[in-house]
Amino acid sequence: MSQTAKSIAKDFLLSALTEDNRFQSTEAFKHWFTRKKQENHFSVEQIPFSSLKQWHFEEETQNLKHASGRFFTIEGIRIHTNFGPTQRWEQPIINQPEIGILGIITRKFDSIPYFLMQAKMEPGNVNILQLSPTVQATKSNFTQVHGGRLPPYLEYFLDRRKSRFLVDQLQTEQGGRFLRKRNRNMIVEVDRDIDILDGFCWLTLGQIKKLLKEDNFVNMDARTVLSCVPMPGSHDFAGQPAKDILVTLGRNRSDDFSQQVFASLLAHDEHADNTTAEIISWFTELKTKYHITVERIPLKAVKQWKRTDREICHEKHPLFSVIAVSVEAGTREVNSWTQPLLKEAQQGLLGFITKKIDGVLHLLMQAKVEPGNIDIIEIAPTVSCSAVEFKRQQGRHVPFLDCFINAASRQIRYSAIQSEEGGRFYHFLNRNMVIDLDESDAIELPENYLWMTLGQVMELLKHGYMNIDTRTLFACIGLKP
Amino acid sequence: MSQTAKSIAKDFLLSALTEDNRFQSTEAFKHWFTRKKQENHFSVEQIPFSSLKQWHFEEETQNLKHASGRFFTIEGIRIHTNFGPTQRWEQPIINQPEIGILGIITRKFDSIPYFLMQAKMEPGNVNILQLSPTVQATKSNFTQVHGGRLPPYLEYFLDRRKSRFLVDQLQTEQGGRFLRKRNRNMIVEVDRDIDILDGFCWLTLGQIKKLLKEDNFVNMDARTVLSCVPMPGSHDFAGQPAKDILVTLGRNRSDDFSQQVFASLLAHDEHADNTTAEIISWFTELKTKYHITVERIPLKAVKQWKRTDREICHEKHPLFSVIAVSVEAGTREVNSWTQPLLKEAQQGLLGFITKKIDGVLHLLMQAKVEPGNIDIIEIAPTVSCSAVEFKRQQGRHVPFLDCFINAASRQIRYSAIQSEEGGRFYHFLNRNMVIDLDESDAIELPENYLWMTLGQVMELLKHGYMNIDTRTLFACIGLKP
Repeated sequence: MSQTAKSIAKDFLLSALTEDNRFQSTEAFKHWFTRKKQENHFSVEQIPFSSLKQWHFEEETQNLKHASGRFFTIEGIRIHTNFGPTQRWEQPIINQPEIGILGIITRKFDSIPYFLMQAKMEPGNVNILQLSPTVQATKSNFTQVHGGRLPPYLEYFLDRRKSRFLVDQLQTEQGGRFLRKRNRNMIVEVDRDIDILDGFCWLTLGQIKKLLKEDNFVNMDARTVLSCVPMPGSHDFAGQPAKDILVTLGRNRSDDFSQQVFASLLAHDEHADNTTAEIISWFTELKTKYHITVERIPLKAVKQWKRTDREICHEKHPLFSVIAVSVEAGTREVNSWTQPLLKEAQQGLLGFITKKIDGVLHLLMQAKVEPGNIDIIEIAPTVSCSAVEFKRQQGRHVPFLDCFINAASRQIRYSAIQSEEGGRFYHFLNRNMVIDLDESDAIELPENYLWMTLGQVMELLKHGYMNIDTRTLFACIGLKP
Repeated sequence: MSQTAKSIAKDFLLSALTEDNRFQSTEAFKHWFTRKKQENHFSVEQIPFSSLKQWHFEEETQNLKHASGRFFTIEGIRIHTNFGPTQRWEQPIINQPEIGILGIITRKFDSIPYFLMQAKMEPGNVNILQLSPTVQATKSNFTQVHGGRLPPYLEYFLDRRKSRFLVDQLQTEQGGRFLRKRNRNMIVEVDRDIDILDGFCWLTLGQIKKLLKEDNFVNMDARTVLSCVPMPGSHDFAGQPAKDILVTLGRNRSDDFSQQVFASLLAHDEHADNTTAEIISWFTELKTKYHITVERIPLKAVKQWKRTDREICHEKHPLFSVIAVSVEAGTREVNSWTQPLLKEAQQGLLGFITKKIDGVLHLLMQAKVEPGNIDIIEIAPTVSCSAVEFKRQQGRHVPFLDCFINAASRQIRYSAIQSEEGGRFYHFLNRNMVIDLDESDAIELPENYLWMTLGQVMELLKHGYMNIDTRTLFACIGLKP
C-alpha cells in the first residue's frame, strides 16, 4: 500500500510542476475558454423578492425558503461568544443542512495526472464563467429536486467500482455565512477513456496553478478541492534536500520562493517551529477557553437588519445583504430560474504572512471562532477579513491587516482577486495575498496565532482543521514562479 | 524539533517496556496500594432522591440539577437517526457542558519517563480505590464550586511555565451517556523535583500496563490519558524491523503477540490494509450517509422511563438507571456529600478483534453513531455493547459479539473487567477483551467496519476520531507478555 500512497503524492507533485499539456497549451486552453464564454448566453438580473418563483418568506418566521423545502433557507441566528471584540450579535445565515459533492476526476497521461475541469457559469460570478471542478452537486441536485438533468460524471463520485477515490474529505464552508455547512471534497481517478463532454477539458495541476494567478478565473469550489491534493513528505524522499529533489525530478526551474515553498511542504515536525503535538495543544487550549452559542431565530427577529422590496441588509453597516436574482442560461441544467443570493458590499482580504524560521518557510495561522463552525474554532489564514474598507474607516483593529495594506512590492509573493462560490454569493470578492517577511522581522503573536510549515497545514487540512479561507488561499500557492 | 518529538516517543516506548522501578517494585507498590485502601474510610450508600442535598428536580422540567447550576444535570433527549436497528428513542442523559482536565505528570529518572499516579477513591467504583491520573478535575472543581481545596498538582496543567505539555488533546466521553462531553487529556513533563503527596507514586508505563491486566485496578480516566501516549513510527527507526528494534533496545523479552503489537504500532500506511486516505474516505462516506438529530427534552417528558423514590429507570428493560448516593470519605476534598450516579444494570463488553493481514496485525474498528457524539460518528472497537445478557436474551444481533462470547482460550490475548468513571457511574463494568483470529479466518465486514494498524489508530486518535471505548481498550494493550 505504501508505494501506492507515496506514489499518488509523487504523481501529484509532478503534475504541479508540469505546465506542458499533451492536449492543449495553456494559451490554447484560454482561447477555448474565451470561446465558451462567447458561445453561451447568460444573463443575471436583480429582481424584487416578490418576483421570486418557488421561493417565499415563510409566514411565521419570515425565513426565505424554497417551495420544495430543499436547497437552502435564509434564517436568523443569535450569537453569544467570549471571543473577539464583538461578543453578541444577530445576523441572517444560510442553512443548508446537506452534504454536497465537489469533485474532480483525474487520469494519468504519460504518467502525469490531469484534472478534468469545467467551464461553468454561476449567477453570482463577476465574470459569469469560471474554471470549476468536474462536479459540484448539492444533494438537491442529484436527487433532482429542480427537475433538471443529473449532473454529468456524478456516477464516478458515487460508485467506487467506477473510479478510485484518492481524496474524499468533509470540508466546511464559510462559517460567517453558512450554518454548519460541509461538502465532500473529492478527487477520483479513472484509468480508462471517458467521454469528454462539451465544456470540459483536461489540465495539469501546474496549468491550474498558473491560472490561479489570474483574477477570478478558478472558482472557489475548484480551489477547495485542489487544496486537498496530497503532496509527499520528506520521508518519501528519504530526507533528500528539497533542491536536490527538484533537480532529480528534472524540474529545477523554480525561483527561490517556490523552492522554499517546496521545502516547507516537505517539512513536518522535523523542521517546524512547533511540533504537531504542540499545535494540537495550542488548539485544545483555545477550544477550552473560548465558547460560542448560536441560537437559531426567525429571520424576522434579527435585530438591526431590515428588509426592503429588494434586499435584506444591515440598518447601518455595509455588510452582506440578501438579494434575489433572475437568471437565464444556455448551458445549465435548467434554462431559467430565480434564486436568492448573498451580496457582499465590499471586497475582503485573505492573506498569509510567510517567514523563514531556522531556514524553513512558515505560514502564520489564526485560530478563529465563527458562528457557522461545527466545533467552535477552525484555523484561518493570518488575515481573513470581509468589508476591509468599512473596518478601516471604523478604526477596528484587525491583527496584521496593515502588513498587507502597506506591503512593499518586494514582499508580495502572490496577489490576485478571487471569487467566493457564485451559486450562493453575488460578486463576493476577496483579495488573496501572500506576503513574505524577512527572517529577521520580529512580530509579536496574539495567543490565537501560530507558525506552521506548509507540510503541517496539509496534514491538518485532511482532518478538517482548516477553514475554507485557509484552503482556498493555500490552493493558490504554486511551485513555479 | 524533530529530535524532540521523536525522542519523546522513544522515551515513552522505553517506559512501556520497563517494569523495573527505581522507587518500588510492582509488588511493593501493590502493598502500598492495599495499605492506602485500609487506611482510608469510605462509605457509599444508595439514598432516596429526597435525601439529596443541594441537588433537586427542577420544577418545570423535572431535570435533576445542582443548586449552584454547575457540575452536571440529568436531562432528557429525543433521538432520530437512520443508523442501526433502533432509529427513534428517548432517554435520560448527563449534560455537563464543561471541559475538565484529566492529566498525568511525567518525569524522567535514569532517562525513563515515570508517571505520577494517584490512589483515588470514587463513589461509583466497585472496589472504591483505583489507580488514577495525577489530576482529574472538572471546571467546577478548579473554580471551587463545592468549596473544597484546589486539586493538588493542577497548576502544572494550567501554566506552561511550570511544565512541558507533551500531550494535550480534547477527547470525548461516552456518547450514550453524556451529551457532547469532552475532557482535556494531558501529559505534562517536569524536569525537577516536585513534592510527592500522600496517595501519589511514580510508576513506569510498563508497570501500569501490567496492572491493566487486573480487574478494576486502573481507572477509566487513567486509561483514556494513557491511550494518548505517543509511540514512535517506523520512520523513527529508519524502517528497521520491529524485532531488531526490540533487540537494539535490549528489551527483546516479548512474546510473539507483543512483537506483533509493536510491529503494528510502527506500521502506518506502508503496511496497512487501508491507507489513511482510504480510512478518511470510508469515514466521510459514512458521515454523509448517516444522520442523527438529538433534541433536548425535559426529563419528565422522556417516554418509557419512570421515576420512583430511588431511581429513574426504563419501564421494561434493564438499561442504565439514575440513582442517588450518600458518600463519606476520609481523603477527598469534601468529607461527605450526596450526588446522583448512573447505574448500569448489567455488564457490557468492549472488544477488539485482531488479525494479521499481509503479516501485519490489524484491529477491526467500527464507525458508530451515538447521540452524545459531537459530530455524528466516532470510531468504536469491534464490539462496544452494554447490557450484554439482556441483548442476547432479546436475540438482538450485535455484529461480532459471538466471536467474543465463544472465543477459544488460544484466541484470547487480553481479558479483564474494567470500570467506567466512578464519579458519574455506579458499578459500570465492561469486560475488555482482545481476541486474535488466524490470518486465514475470513470474515465479512459490514460497511461500517474497517481494519486498521495500531499505528493508524494512534495517529487518528490524536485528532479525536476514536471514542472512549476504543481509547480505554487500546490503553490496555501492552508490549510485554
